[in-house]
Amino acid sequence: MRAAVEAFAERGFHATTTRDIASRAGMSPAALYIHYRTKEELLYRISLVGHERSVRILTEAAEGPGGPVERLTAAVTSFVRWHAERHTTARVVQYELSALAEEHLAEISALRRRTGEIMRGILAEGVAAGQFEIPHIRSTARAILSLCIDVSRWFDPSGPDGPDVLAARYAALVLRMAGAGGGAEAGGAPAGTVTGSSG
Amino acid sequence: MRAAVEAFAERGFHATTTRDIASRAGMSPAALYIHYRTKEELLYRISLVGHERSVRILTEAAEGPGGPVERLTAAVTSFVRWHAERHTTARVVQYELSALAEEHLAEISALRRRTGEIMRGILAEGVAAGQFEIPHIRSTARAILSLCIDVSRWFDPSGPDGPDVLAARYAALVLRMAGAGGGAEAGGAPAGTVTGSSG
Repeated sequence: MRAAVEAFAERGFHATTTRDIASRAGMSPAALYIHYRTKEELLYRISLVGHERSVRILTEAAEGPGGPVERLTAAVTSFVRWHAERHTTARVVQYELSALAEEHLAEISALRRRTGEIMRGILAEGVAAGQFEIPHIRSTARAILSLCIDVSRWFDPSGPDGPDVLAARYAALVLRMAGAGGGAEAGGAPAGTVTGSSG
Repeated sequence: MRAAVEAFAERGFHATTTRDIASRAGMSPAALYIHYRTKEELLYRISLVGHERSVRILTEAAEGPGGPVERLTAAVTSFVRWHAERHTTARVVQYELSALAEEHLAEISALRRRTGEIMRGILAEGVAAGQFEIPHIRSTARAILSLCIDVSRWFDPSGPDGPDVLAARYAALVLRMAGAGGGAEAGGAPAGTVTGSSG
């Protein structure tokens, strides 16, 4: 699976052959075939492991200790860290979905919907507790997940900020997006200035 | 170029042949060759046009009317709208960089650094004017550009929110990320209204 991740990340799914993957893994194509019948099955397994990991990370955060602020912080911290540390895997997981067979895509799509639901749940919990101030929960959840996921596109291990620094900064930005902390910076717009409410 | 964008978006750069592209464009491979000697040259032209567009969008916003709040709003609004409306092109522009030849990648990388500089400039201007409150300008600029770029990955024209609604909501979220002045522009709801709709 590691060999397949590297090959898919480098050349894309469609340009990768099972022979490439077997060769990277130091196996014969026949030996690879014992474990995975097609390269689509390999992509599916990579995608499944990655998406199950995403759901687990967010579930643990959503059910973790503390209140909505701590839970949102934990969710973003873990999710950013995973997309930075495992950026090659995450890139394949996030960007090669269209190559999945129909029934596999359906299964993965269900896991993706679940990650959205968990994030919306954390935000809704904070709004209900009066700790977040969020005009549009769905769009805000989407934007928060985008921030985390996009890390896998640009993250460079030789860059100035490591996964932990990045995760802490992004968690702080996300608390602002959620209008956390009751501060003037976060919410409380006067009537008539609400934006983005037209649909 | 449109045919190449479609082919690259569908199968990835490496799995696309110049024959595929010529056939989609209703041309012979020989006719395509008159305009573009290699498929890498096609990818480079697509990437160049897209990145020049990004720099232009952000430059116009940074030099536009009003103060930092209006400029940041304009930048995010236009950038999100472009990544939503032209999501197929944007996806190729943002995700196929590694297939560029070295000298082309250097040219594109310079344009990418420029987009980062322009965003950091807008944020720094707001901090200097006392209108933004930003602990880490580089990470915040990166996160803002991530939000906009990631739209091209997930945007679905059949989804509930069109480019304009999305752009307005994201602009409001970004003003919060920038700690913009007192919340009046931050897209919060007026005190006392019910918040946390499913939007």
